[in-house]
Amino acid sequence: MTNHVYKSLELTGTSGTNMEDAIKNAVGRAAKTVHNMRWFEMVGVRGHIEKGAVSQWQVTIKIGFALEE
Amino acid sequence: MTNHVYKSLELTGTSGTNMEDAIKNAVGRAAKTVHNMRWFEMVGVRGHIEKGAVSQWQVTIKIGFALEE
Amino acid sequence: MTNHVYKSLELTGTSGTNMEDAIKNAVGRAAKTVHNMRWFEMVGVRGHIEKGAVSQWQVTIKIGFALEE
Amino acid sequence: MTNHVYKSLELTGTSGTNMEDAIKNAVGRAAKTVHNMRWFEMVGVRGHIEKGAVSQWQVTIKIGFALEE
Amino acid sequence: MTNHVYKSLELTGTSGTNMEDAIKNAVGRAAKTVHNMRWFEMVGVRGHIEKGAVSQWQVTIKIGFALEE
Amino acid sequence: MTNHVYKSLELTGTSGTNMEDAIKNAVGRAAKTVHNMRWFEMVGVRGHIEKGAVSQWQVTIKIGFALEE
Amino acid sequence: MTNHVYKSLELTGTSGTNMEDAIKNAVGRAAKTVHNMRWFEMVGVRGHIEKGAVSQWQVTIKIGFALEE
Amino acid sequence: MTNHVYKSLELTGTSGTNMEDAIKNAVGRAAKTVHNMRWFEMVGVRGHIEKGAVSQWQVTIKIGFALEE
Amino acid sequence: MTNHVYKSLELTGTSGTNMEDAIKNAVGRAAKTVHNMRWFEMVGVRGHIEKGAVSQWQVTIKIGFALEE
Amino acid sequence: MTNHVYKSLELTGTSGTNMEDAIKNAVGRAAKTVHNMRWFEMVGVRGHIEKGAVSQWQVTIKIGFALEE
Amino acid sequence: MTNHVYKSLELTGTSGTNMEDAIKNAVGRAAKTVHNMRWFEMVGVRGHIEKGAVSQWQVTIKIGFALEE
Amino acid sequence: MTNHVYKSLELTGTSGTNMEDAIKNAVGRAAKTVHNMRWFEMVGVRGHIEKGAVSQWQVTIKIGFALEE
Repeated sequence: MTNHVYKSLELTGTSGTNMEDAIKNAVGRAAKTVHNMRWFEMVGVRGHIEKGAVSQWQVTIKIGFALEE
Repeated sequence: MTNHVYKSLELTGTSGTNMEDAIKNAVGRAAKTVHNMRWFEMVGVRGHIEKGAVSQWQVTIKIGFALEE
Repeated sequence: MTNHVYKSLELTGTSGTNMEDAIKNAVGRAAKTVHNMRWFEMVGVRGHIEKGAVSQWQVTIKIGFALEE
Repeated sequence: MTNHVYKSLELTGTSGTNMEDAIKNAVGRAAKTVHNMRWFEMVGVRGHIEKGAVSQWQVTIKIGFALEE
Repeated sequence: MTNHVYKSLELTGTSGTNMEDAIKNAVGRAAKTVHNMRWFEMVGVRGHIEKGAVSQWQVTIKIGFALEE
Repeated sequence: MTNHVYKSLELTGTSGTNMEDAIKNAVGRAAKTVHNMRWFEMVGVRGHIEKGAVSQWQVTIKIGFALEE
Repeated sequence: MTNHVYKSLELTGTSGTNMEDAIKNAVGRAAKTVHNMRWFEMVGVRGHIEKGAVSQWQVTIKIGFALEE
Repeated sequence: MTNHVYKSLELTGTSGTNMEDAIKNAVGRAAKTVHNMRWFEMVGVRGHIEKGAVSQWQVTIKIGFALEE
Repeated sequence: MTNHVYKSLELTGTSGTNMEDAIKNAVGRAAKTVHNMRWFEMVGVRGHIEKGAVSQWQVTIKIGFALEE
Repeated sequence: MTNHVYKSLELTGTSGTNMEDAIKNAVGRAAKTVHNMRWFEMVGVRGHIEKGAVSQWQVTIKIGFALEE
Repeated sequence: MTNHVYKSLELTGTSGTNMEDAIKNAVGRAAKTVHNMRWFEMVGVRGHIEKGAVSQWQVTIKIGFALEE
Repeated sequence: MTNHVYKSLELTGTSGTNMEDAIKNAVGRAAKTVHNMRWFEMVGVRGHIEKGAVSQWQVTIKIGFALEE
């Protein structure tokens, strides 16, 4: 088993739809510049309320990716 | 930037469908009596199991709203 | 009110779809061998990322069930 | 299963006797104005010491009650 | 000093009387099937409220017991 | 020692100046409608950043006050 | 209001009877050498199990006392 | 990616040598009866002191293993 | 409402003056290279003591900023 | 690098002015009897409210100091 | 005392040998691109289990380093 | 079973070698002045980094010892 070193990023994805979509948005944005992503961990869920209704889901995740040797 | 004071309520919304729906039910119920709601934070997820299947999602949130001056 | 004793199991359900489905998979698997399940509590959400996208939702829950007298 | 919305109050009950009594005092006081209380959760225990002995038990609980539709 | 391996169970005992009794009920039920129990740790206290009064104490504990070699 | 019951409110005070001022704003606003306040506990500090500088301090506190008999 | 400085001790009291008694034992022992004790906070409850029954309650508390000027 | 369900066990391994050895002892003992173990997580480290020196390392871990379909 | 993705940095600012100044120093240093900063959250306060007096305040914050599309 | 052993004290300083002053009061009081203090960590902030206003800041810190060989 | 600003990275080092080695691997990898590292803090230990034995230690640390002025 | 009262000390041991050695150093130093030590609990691990490598392990533990009657 190769002994990689992994780095964690903390991102907050947002979505008008649901929590999974907010997470996918964060991972999708990270994929533009980060390679070798392996896992995420959800560390918080908040949201915006407008006119008495949820208008945005805000999900904070940590993303782990392997550093190149 | 106006320096409002915000109050937090802790509510548990429930739903037979999913977590987002439980949160929307809590926010919707609060909207009947609370104005100026701005954000929520998810602080716990529990659920009811009946006959070996999830029958209800119970999501506890804190809701922040601006107090009137 | 009968004073039952409840036991908690900690399971991690997985799903390619969403968090609710991962939880349902865990509860469904437990139902094969455990009776009298009453509640669950979500204690962690992680996931697998492949090729820059979420490929699996991994949700850890505690399940409470009543022990027989 | 009806999908109620529940609200949580945080109260600190006090007693010269023991922890259970402090909790009962908090629940009893709440019952004067709050209906449909369903559960409590203990979130902290402190106490007052006078002349080298415990003189008061102070137990903080959250109380959940169903909001009317 | 023998180097045993211990396993932890998480149980919730209930009682109409007090917290200690709820813990004793959990330990007593466990004793029917588990041997070599050594310690417990209290990890949560909740309760049921009926008609404005505490009707049941629900105490969650972890119990550690030595596994046989 | 009288065995009062105390209720906790969770408020977020804001200020352009510093953390103490944000707390004072929250307590001052509460004093308009709440009597017999006794203590507060700081439970979180956040802030707003505009144009690369802190523009607002946001301090969340719990306030404990004695309920009337 | 005099601005005292307080010191906290962490003690674990034990008892064969109940949690309150374990706390009283800790406070009573501290009173032999510590003056001006003002409050305690419960930070953990564990216990010893012998022959399938709780044989000892072990309650860890922090005790705050005023330092002399 | 197959959507397994995983179960977590909580074990405390002990050793007179070091923390890693205590963890290996716990995993080794579990391997006698549990199959398909995949990961562990360290959740606490305690130890026994005798005659002014550490005589035993006690490491609590959660072990995750795949349940058979 | 645009669905941005935000990234969090963790910084520790230091100051010989007070906590607010330490936070401002961290935000000011970040502003040299980071754009679109929106919020911070205080996650820890430590300090250095020299010759029996506080010589430096060390405040750790998370800073959230919007990633460009 | 010399391998010192450090001891931590937990103190609560109080002040009518602000949080930094409360911490300085605690460190200053400790300096009367403790040598070689190196760092502190803030572990809690509470305060006293009188007549609807903050009358005292109460800041709990841990202080680390080097033990003499 | 110069008032530096420090940044924290979160890395997970892995090793087939032990926890210290996993941490050293993370620090060593970071040293390739990061200067002025000053401290680390261990924030989690997990591991991989293969064929009933620990095959890899995975230790997550935060590393603090001084930012250049 | 005698109902002793135990006191906890918080110490940070350091070592250039590994975590176990840092803990042993803390326990060994405590043994010079403290009798009847029974257990320790690890509450934090930090370390010093010099020239891109770990130069010191710093492990904080709580030590419990029995107070004399």
